[in-house]
Amino acid sequence: MRALVLERTRELRLRDIDVDATMGPGDVRIAVRSVGICGSDLHYYLHGAIGPYVVREPMVLGHEASGVVTAVGSAVTTLKPGDRVCMEPGVPDWASRASREGIYNLDPAVRFWATPPVHGCLMPEVVHPANLCFPLPDNVSFAEGAFVEPLAVGLQAAVKARITPGQVGVVLGAGTIGVLTALSALAAGCAEVVITDVQPEKLAIAGRYPGLRPVNVAEASAPEAVRSITGGWGADCVFEASGSPRAFAGMTELAAPGGVVVLVGIPPAPVPFDVAAAQAKELRFENVFRYAHVFPKAVALLASGKIDVKPLISRTFSFEQSVEAFEFAAENRPDVIKTQISLEP
Amino acid sequence: MRALVLERTRELRLRDIDVDATMGPGDVRIAVRSVGICGSDLHYYLHGAIGPYVVREPMVLGHEASGVVTAVGSAVTTLKPGDRVCMEPGVPDWASRASREGIYNLDPAVRFWATPPVHGCLMPEVVHPANLCFPLPDNVSFAEGAFVEPLAVGLQAAVKARITPGQVGVVLGAGTIGVLTALSALAAGCAEVVITDVQPEKLAIAGRYPGLRPVNVAEASAPEAVRSITGGWGADCVFEASGSPRAFAGMTELAAPGGVVVLVGIPPAPVPFDVAAAQAKELRFENVFRYAHVFPKAVALLASGKIDVKPLISRTFSFEQSVEAFEFAAENRPDVIKTQISLEP
Amino acid sequence: MRALVLERTRELRLRDIDVDATMGPGDVRIAVRSVGICGSDLHYYLHGAIGPYVVREPMVLGHEASGVVTAVGSAVTTLKPGDRVCMEPGVPDWASRASREGIYNLDPAVRFWATPPVHGCLMPEVVHPANLCFPLPDNVSFAEGAFVEPLAVGLQAAVKARITPGQVGVVLGAGTIGVLTALSALAAGCAEVVITDVQPEKLAIAGRYPGLRPVNVAEASAPEAVRSITGGWGADCVFEASGSPRAFAGMTELAAPGGVVVLVGIPPAPVPFDVAAAQAKELRFENVFRYAHVFPKAVALLASGKIDVKPLISRTFSFEQSVEAFEFAAENRPDVIKTQISLEP
Amino acid sequence: MRALVLERTRELRLRDIDVDATMGPGDVRIAVRSVGICGSDLHYYLHGAIGPYVVREPMVLGHEASGVVTAVGSAVTTLKPGDRVCMEPGVPDWASRASREGIYNLDPAVRFWATPPVHGCLMPEVVHPANLCFPLPDNVSFAEGAFVEPLAVGLQAAVKARITPGQVGVVLGAGTIGVLTALSALAAGCAEVVITDVQPEKLAIAGRYPGLRPVNVAEASAPEAVRSITGGWGADCVFEASGSPRAFAGMTELAAPGGVVVLVGIPPAPVPFDVAAAQAKELRFENVFRYAHVFPKAVALLASGKIDVKPLISRTFSFEQSVEAFEFAAENRPDVIKTQISLEP
Repeated sequence: MRALVLERTRELRLRDIDVDATMGPGDVRIAVRSVGICGSDLHYYLHGAIGPYVVREPMVLGHEASGVVTAVGSAVTTLKPGDRVCMEPGVPDWASRASREGIYNLDPAVRFWATPPVHGCLMPEVVHPANLCFPLPDNVSFAEGAFVEPLAVGLQAAVKARITPGQVGVVLGAGTIGVLTALSALAAGCAEVVITDVQPEKLAIAGRYPGLRPVNVAEASAPEAVRSITGGWGADCVFEASGSPRAFAGMTELAAPGGVVVLVGIPPAPVPFDVAAAQAKELRFENVFRYAHVFPKAVALLASGKIDVKPLISRTFSFEQSVEAFEFAAENRPDVIKTQISLEP
Repeated sequence: MRALVLERTRELRLRDIDVDATMGPGDVRIAVRSVGICGSDLHYYLHGAIGPYVVREPMVLGHEASGVVTAVGSAVTTLKPGDRVCMEPGVPDWASRASREGIYNLDPAVRFWATPPVHGCLMPEVVHPANLCFPLPDNVSFAEGAFVEPLAVGLQAAVKARITPGQVGVVLGAGTIGVLTALSALAAGCAEVVITDVQPEKLAIAGRYPGLRPVNVAEASAPEAVRSITGGWGADCVFEASGSPRAFAGMTELAAPGGVVVLVGIPPAPVPFDVAAAQAKELRFENVFRYAHVFPKAVALLASGKIDVKPLISRTFSFEQSVEAFEFAAENRPDVIKTQISLEP
Repeated sequence: MRALVLERTRELRLRDIDVDATMGPGDVRIAVRSVGICGSDLHYYLHGAIGPYVVREPMVLGHEASGVVTAVGSAVTTLKPGDRVCMEPGVPDWASRASREGIYNLDPAVRFWATPPVHGCLMPEVVHPANLCFPLPDNVSFAEGAFVEPLAVGLQAAVKARITPGQVGVVLGAGTIGVLTALSALAAGCAEVVITDVQPEKLAIAGRYPGLRPVNVAEASAPEAVRSITGGWGADCVFEASGSPRAFAGMTELAAPGGVVVLVGIPPAPVPFDVAAAQAKELRFENVFRYAHVFPKAVALLASGKIDVKPLISRTFSFEQSVEAFEFAAENRPDVIKTQISLEP
Repeated sequence: MRALVLERTRELRLRDIDVDATMGPGDVRIAVRSVGICGSDLHYYLHGAIGPYVVREPMVLGHEASGVVTAVGSAVTTLKPGDRVCMEPGVPDWASRASREGIYNLDPAVRFWATPPVHGCLMPEVVHPANLCFPLPDNVSFAEGAFVEPLAVGLQAAVKARITPGQVGVVLGAGTIGVLTALSALAAGCAEVVITDVQPEKLAIAGRYPGLRPVNVAEASAPEAVRSITGGWGADCVFEASGSPRAFAGMTELAAPGGVVVLVGIPPAPVPFDVAAAQAKELRFENVFRYAHVFPKAVALLASGKIDVKPLISRTFSFEQSVEAFEFAAENRPDVIKTQISLEP
């Protein structure tokens, strides 16, 4: 099967590769239609590893995907050929302790697309468990379907925050995950969400959404913005989506007494944490690792129009242009949010 | 002070009446600008009592109100003359056990406007505690401000449901509270809300809101509608807002396994409850009594445009026409949601 | 295999029967050592059916069990021959929607021992999934291990109540499940639990536990007892464990404002529910259907001595006396809590 | 009134001092009977300040207290002269935003005994709001009543953890707060709690409680102890009660996937926080600032015998020996948990 293969650090090729495509009774076969490029794909491409996950053998990239079911296993009752779906890329062992407790994203045995040594989905056809493929309504395009995966991270953050309607949120960082977290917080009940960054281009894109209030922290003070909106009380929920150690220092000041801070961005090293300041407000801190149970919710929010990801699709390449697509995404232009690859015929 | 006085059952008069207007250090004086007519106002007008609350003396009606601050007590720091506000009508004893525990709406000592023997606010001026008056941003009108009180009931229901983003809700009953509960459920994260009634006029009004899906249960099956939307799984949250005993019988069938049922409507007598059916799905039932902590959240949701109550204001009367306004509201026309009285100069 | 077989209503026989004992890679083989007789076993014996579950073919009874592992499947890493275990009797499909969401007890595909047409475990040997077998520490006997199943129901109720330490609870009904629910509520943090019944013998057994305060509602008023303990405020959590329609009528009066009512007992028909009274206190109602995730917690509480079930084992019969054991249990003597059958060599 | 006055750093005197003893309608007058010495009392004594709170004027010390009501204000209905009570030392403004939301401990206007410039209670008589005085049952001594305040911190931590019955906990630090947190975690449902320290004397005291398992981290590995108890899964809840920066480094390793870490101890400076490690387990972090709503719960747990603080009272001095008592406590002997001062006649 032809696929986008990461041969080694900084070497990508579109070439044939042998991939196990055996179908079990609970699996479906899918013609892939759209794949988004994620920061982790880029990280493997540019650096060959993320923490303990090291690319040692050629690996197919890609894990944000949608497609059309072409065949179903003997035990599949919920899908049929022709169904349009998006795919949740991590396959846990459902009988494991973590999965049984409902936190299958924390199952150490999870096999996740494009996390070494597991191949990703940047190829014309994949086999996947039916219960991790979620139908796309007619009004959700394949491109939007491929956006469900990163949106799921934002929704996981919003769920962890336990937002009640009418709250005020803050998101630190206006990259893909930052904007999706902010949109998730709005969909989850926030009346207004302050979103901060230092890149005016990213803030401009975020600022086009009603309910998002961009603050350029190179020029203005996030705490002051939050105080003015909340009458000095602070934000009910603060989301760290930049991974920047500097952002951590200010989080506690942004939050209201009894508020919550959700850590989505991954700082490269331990950050200093002012416990006494967090205690004085009895803040709750939540941590996000991917997502669990939110894919069908994300699809429903796209279908209902409550979340619109279309303005975030910056550029789309064809499958044949996959290597160019990665090079474009790797430029990391300030006005680019998401680069996608289309396999539509 | 001239006020709309309920002299006795079915006898309303706009006349002068002595009302205690002493201002404590924490109080503000407010020029009333808009008052909505609630079902309970009508009930006292038509029947003279609601359960244990019996009108024994002439009583001023009205408790859904907004206005302008004209004077502030010596200890008030959060408001000043000229501020536009809406008023939360129940005054608890903040030092009581219920209030200390954060459930001040359940304080037995609460004094609630237009609940005998406490006068309401259908008069040009009221005195009220500053911490129960919430500022209205410029883009929220007095008419919308007077809508915060009934909206707060819907929000209380949505908060109790603990909605997570992307869920599917059902609201039984498309009266004022039903529609406001449905809008609250959407604002709180539901991707879609089925709303049921037997009056096509009410359903037509509800159906104009994106995300609300009206079902006329005189003609169609609510369970079937919910099954078709949810792939047979059931609704994550079901809100009973009709008070109809017949509605209770079907609630359990509508809910998903592990779902929640929120009881907002007040049936006139005990209803039959199929415990075994509720157990088979481990349903959670929540009960709503007015609201606590949600007024500022309701204002924020109106200001941000996430909830729009303007289409629900069916007709507005002047203060001088207050008696006519009540007669109009008492007709209970199927195409009327909310009748308001304006005291704007 | 020799087993206790329910041939048809009121006809039990200890005889050989063919039972599928194929072992999958995730299964273990267990020599059964102790089995408790549950109310549902008795109900099938005496009436041949529970609701929609009808005994149409001879069925082995028993689902409260402990034993010793004698063989393990090829994929089992957590158990080895010789391990003493108790067994969770319901086997769900872990990949189903309910299971994935952490509510595997609500999976409609669950296969539960001694629920027709699935055989129970009253026989010398059973095959069961390893991840539903939980190790018993040395200080927990097989008899206690066979008590984990009914204890799990009480713990599920206590978990649903979300007890905080120092609360006051009430349990209606001092049968096996009532006492186990009361002990679970104590273990979960209640400072004191009132337990009610009309049988003095049952109350005497319950009353021997520190922290349990028995009230004979044939002679005294439960609401008065609760008021006197709680200074008139009411109980934080009320557990209905009798299934008696009369008990439902009084529950709302027993609970504190903002409190919770957990429905454990299964009334035979719909009960009248005073919604307005529940709303005036904003009560939360939770429903219990078996249990999920609590078996290892129950074992830990037995091992630590926080819950002691030994005083509840009223009488133990040998496997050869199984039919007598059922006849004894069916007498339903007021001083009998639990009858067990021992298969220990 | 004669009182124990901190004149300035390291200078204590038992002398007459003018203290405002005006009684409002909601207040009671109390003859103080027992006062515990807290670490914060010692800190003011030895250092004259805690963070921003600086002793600038002579201040009466003491805030852990019990006594007997001698007079009640005109509005007090819940207490009468002769009632034995313990007193919650922080008086918030019940009408403030934080108090209304149920988090009165976070009200910035709170006046807290022996926190400058507010006098403490180490004197024969105090005036206090009735709703912050909680009756002691006959079986709870004044000495135990004076233990309610530090116990309340431990209970606040246990409440924040949202323990479910049968969990395994870990407490880092076996000082007063550490042991009380461990006892609270047991009372709140933990089956077993590992408690760590480097002082064998403290661990010996802790180890006398059933359910507490002491681990000397100078000699043994806490992670290994936790892994062996939990089959490698980790502790459900971890409590940091040492304030030691080194303890923070290891917390994440101790916790189970999906677990909670509660921060009770106050490190003197920011600590390094490994966000990526916390995210890999999606840990929740909770912060504790004093307590809210737990005093009556603490009394109930003492009365029921579920928590026994008597073994923690290391030495008791008379009021006349107050200065000696502070000097003794300041020695910080490893075998001393709590020093108390008795004012009983």
